Amino acid sequence: MSEPDTKRVKTSDEAPYELIYWPNFPGRGEFVRLLFEEAGVSYVDTAKAGDDAASTVLHLTSPDNKGDAINPPSFACPALKHGDLRLSQTPNILLYLGPKLGLAPTEGRGMYHVNQIALTILDCFSNEVHETHHPVSVSDYYEDQKPEAKRRAKAFTRERLPKFLAHLQRVLDGEASGDGPWLYGGKLTYADLVLFQGIDGTQFAFPRTMKSLRDSGKYDGVFGLYDAVKGRPNIKKYLASHRRCQYSDGIWRHYPELEED
Amino acid sequence: MSEPDTKRVKTSDEAPYELIYWPNFPGRGEFVRLLFEEAGVSYVDTAKAGDDAASTVLHLTSPDNKGDAINPPSFACPALKHGDLRLSQTPNILLYLGPKLGLAPTEGRGMYHVNQIALTILDCFSNEVHETHHPVSVSDYYEDQKPEAKRRAKAFTRERLPKFLAHLQRVLDGEASGDGPWLYGGKLTYADLVLFQGIDGTQFAFPRTMKSLRDSGKYDGVFGLYDAVKGRPNIKKYLASHRRCQYSDGIWRHYPELEED
Repeated sequence: MSEPDTKRVKTSDEAPYELIYWPNFPGRGEFVRLLFEEAGVSYVDTAKAGDDAASTVLHLTSPDNKGDAINPPSFACPALKHGDLRLSQTPNILLYLGPKLGLAPTEGRGMYHVNQIALTILDCFSNEVHETHHPVSVSDYYEDQKPEAKRRAKAFTRERLPKFLAHLQRVLDGEASGDGPWLYGGKLTYADLVLFQGIDGTQFAFPRTMKSLRDSGKYDGVFGLYDAVKGRPNIKKYLASHRRCQYSDGIWRHYPELEED
Repeated sequence: MSEPDTKRVKTSDEAPYELIYWPNFPGRGEFVRLLFEEAGVSYVDTAKAGDDAASTVLHLTSPDNKGDAINPPSFACPALKHGDLRLSQTPNILLYLGPKLGLAPTEGRGMYHVNQIALTILDCFSNEVHETHHPVSVSDYYEDQKPEAKRRAKAFTRERLPKFLAHLQRVLDGEASGDGPWLYGGKLTYADLVLFQGIDGTQFAFPRTMKSLRDSGKYDGVFGLYDAVKGRPNIKKYLASHRRCQYSDGIWRHYPELEED
């Protein structure tokens, strides 16, 4: 099960892939990076472009940028350039790349099922995690919304997180997940990579909570899948490389007080 | 421009469509309903099934429900049944239905662009609006998080809402939107219907704010598109029918104090 799936069609389109994202934290860009890394497909990562990295993002979302004849403008990054195509919105980029990189079915309902699972994981482990440190205003500092953050984090760690983990365990226990540790169809898909990153980031943000949830034994399939992705040869190499960005002040932040009673 | 587009391929699949959603408020189910209504395609709406409506939703998301051999389980509604296919996650259901109902390109990059625009609208006019009345805990009553809600609503109405409206105006001003009032490719797509519902619900929740934003004249394209969708023959009939649910305590709630300084 750990060998790349060679039966899926890869694109013959030879245009280079370029990811546009903020520098200095993994963020939502990481969900996209993991697809390229697992597939062993090279990509330009503008987050690694030094002084130019932030200005590339600012240009993307500038009020003057109205897209072009083919592409609507982007509200936010990550964004993907592939030939003359420009795409944004994380689940949308994954939906596009999945089949091209051999990480999703190329046709039929599987495409929608993998998208469904990825959207659900992103809701919890990316969007709701971000809300824990910015519950009342995205543009204010965390320090200016600490009591609210504490309340939101409590609701997240006690109610939402166990509810989402139980759901993902149900997905794995269900017949449609197929054989092996994977979420859908008995094969590694990008939904598995999204789960890995979501769990990994959430473990950084809420280490005590996640350890206790793992130790409960209720979600062994979910954490087993996390381990299985982490052990994939290309993912392992990537995580040990300088390309893997350290967590800092992005979506996944570690504020110990958010786990205190 | 107000005639249905007959050039797009409709599905030959004759299986009936069934929408599973909560009764008594429009909610995210409304984004799905509008596609069927605009296309003039009949559908079963479990929200209208009287006493059975809530139990249908509870069965969908029950801990015992692990999906079946084809379909993974759903985390939440809305869900769609079509033949033996079961789908959930609002943008995913729209992605599936769009091309079948003549409301999105059936191939190529247009599918991703329409998905991108719809995801962005849902982020603001559905997800972030919901956060305004439940900023610290989804499972607590609004009454138990009023000061936090007031702060979140202020950030939403003063910063987020104008930022998203400006972005959507940029989409309309961009070349890729094509001719006419529509967001993409010079034709009505489901992204336009999503925008209509998002604006309509947000006007119910924040009437003073939305009136003042409309009157500013900065987003004339966006509100012009809202009016264009509202005037479509099938949409007009639907809005006047008993099938259109009144706003109440769903995503879009009117708490006058959330617009006060």
